[in-house]
Amino acid sequence: MDLAEKVLQGDRRAVARLITEVENSGKLAGDILKALHGRTGHAHIIGVTGPPGAGKSTLIDRLAKSYRLLNKKIGIIAIDPSSPFTGGAILGDRIRMSDLNTDPGVYIRSMGTRGHLGGLSRATADVVKILDAFGMDKIIIETVGAGQSEVEIASMAHTTILVEMPGLGDDIQTIKAGIMEIGDIFVVNKADRQGADRTELELRAMLELQSEPGLWVPPILRTVASSNEGITSLRDSIEIHYSHLTSSGNLDKHNYIRTKQEFLSIMREELIGLVIQSELSESQLDGIIMSILKRESDPHTEVSRIIQRFSANR
Amino acid sequence: MDLAEKVLQGDRRAVARLITEVENSGKLAGDILKALHGRTGHAHIIGVTGPPGAGKSTLIDRLAKSYRLLNKKIGIIAIDPSSPFTGGAILGDRIRMSDLNTDPGVYIRSMGTRGHLGGLSRATADVVKILDAFGMDKIIIETVGAGQSEVEIASMAHTTILVEMPGLGDDIQTIKAGIMEIGDIFVVNKADRQGADRTELELRAMLELQSEPGLWVPPILRTVASSNEGITSLRDSIEIHYSHLTSSGNLDKHNYIRTKQEFLSIMREELIGLVIQSELSESQLDGIIMSILKRESDPHTEVSRIIQRFSANR
Repeated sequence: MDLAEKVLQGDRRAVARLITEVENSGKLAGDILKALHGRTGHAHIIGVTGPPGAGKSTLIDRLAKSYRLLNKKIGIIAIDPSSPFTGGAILGDRIRMSDLNTDPGVYIRSMGTRGHLGGLSRATADVVKILDAFGMDKIIIETVGAGQSEVEIASMAHTTILVEMPGLGDDIQTIKAGIMEIGDIFVVNKADRQGADRTELELRAMLELQSEPGLWVPPILRTVASSNEGITSLRDSIEIHYSHLTSSGNLDKHNYIRTKQEFLSIMREELIGLVIQSELSESQLDGIIMSILKRESDPHTEVSRIIQRFSANR
Repeated sequence: MDLAEKVLQGDRRAVARLITEVENSGKLAGDILKALHGRTGHAHIIGVTGPPGAGKSTLIDRLAKSYRLLNKKIGIIAIDPSSPFTGGAILGDRIRMSDLNTDPGVYIRSMGTRGHLGGLSRATADVVKILDAFGMDKIIIETVGAGQSEVEIASMAHTTILVEMPGLGDDIQTIKAGIMEIGDIFVVNKADRQGADRTELELRAMLELQSEPGLWVPPILRTVASSNEGITSLRDSIEIHYSHLTSSGNLDKHNYIRTKQEFLSIMREELIGLVIQSELSESQLDGIIMSILKRESDPHTEVSRIIQRFSANR
């Protein structure tokens, strides 16, 4: 409870401790998130996704600085495809964003893709909540645009930015095809490189395939993040999209869906925790797994049996 | 039940229908999987992962043909990062593997990364089970090596092959770093291209960082899948790894962990289905979500309340 109070009062170390708690899925985290909930719902969540090498980290760095000029507080969550084992990329992100790291109006956190009880999506949603309660105006989530978890995480965002770069081959297109429909704004970064025209043309062609009249028409912007070109336009486009979301009622719809997902995912974890705690000692669980392995039983039968016993014992 | 019998008797159309059922998470699927369980546990599951463009599909095509020479039955599950919306890549896989598609000893299925109730990992595990019961000796799962779901899926495999190609940039290395530790066999495909030596050297350096004495030492092989070079060596390495798994007892350990995960994931889905069915009409759920959105309540409190009511009503 004390920790929740500290987060709300702007204590950065309390935020760090709470996020660690969430990542380890400690029991404490649930109570604190409960206490924070009433102070959330203010932040604009921005997803930035795209293939490795498109320059997402640099773009986010510049975008964050651009928002800082307007005195907006910025949270950044970098979903890191590297593992705790090697950990190289986490360091990479930190270095690239080092001068933001000392800005008290910015909070940066990298999250690895493994070792989250309840899944990475769940943990990311909780971290968004914490940074929202901490008073961040914009929360930027960086993901690599491939994989189901990443698409799930991107779908938390109110505004999703897809970042491409010139000269990526055909196979990248294949991945891109899978996530085109979640993009609200398209960015051709490293636009000073050869092939920017072609990349923009291809994006335009793909977007036309899926455009529906009356809906938001995603703009395609060019940036050179490393030299800060096009960043203000990108910031403006993000704000225009947010206004559009608000006025069309789509922001409310989005928040409804996201809240429902959160509710169901918490329920799923609470339920299984409860059943295991009350019905399954470690040796009982071991016995069940062994009987399934020996084909004396099967998982569906065992699950039914446990749930029936759980119901009867209440 | 009829459908289970047909699968066990080798009816391909029954397999297709059952997989569709699993993808839609129909109630029927659970009963049939229960009936099939006793006939599973025979297949050797092989994961093939790596970045887009490394030539995984062609490699799998050639590997499958090589196993066919030994009269092994082959199941192939291609996890497709494209969406149902565009669907281009699914078609691509089909075409590339078209002459396998007419071989009665081969069963190929593409799976999109979205729209699976209970998650893609769950659905993939079920499809593996079906193909196992269908009598496939080797089941090859193709994934793009990025993202948590893909790593989860790769971890279903007994033998995991990581495919690289020469000349990919630094950012690809970053992704690779995250999945190096799951590789049992490393392949430098397109090894006739410039830079194959360097790629092999880099792989070797990274492997040395993480080698532990006494454990399996992952071999690094070179292939040119398009011209069938190195495929027999790859097949041999896979068989050597499988023997090593069996003799070391690691196969049993692996199957134990996988069965436990399956059991818990089925329990999770059954529990939430039961609670929603007995405690939450659509309008009640809507009311709860609205009260959370208005910050009159929070998800943790609501979950506790529902679970308590569920327990009391039993």
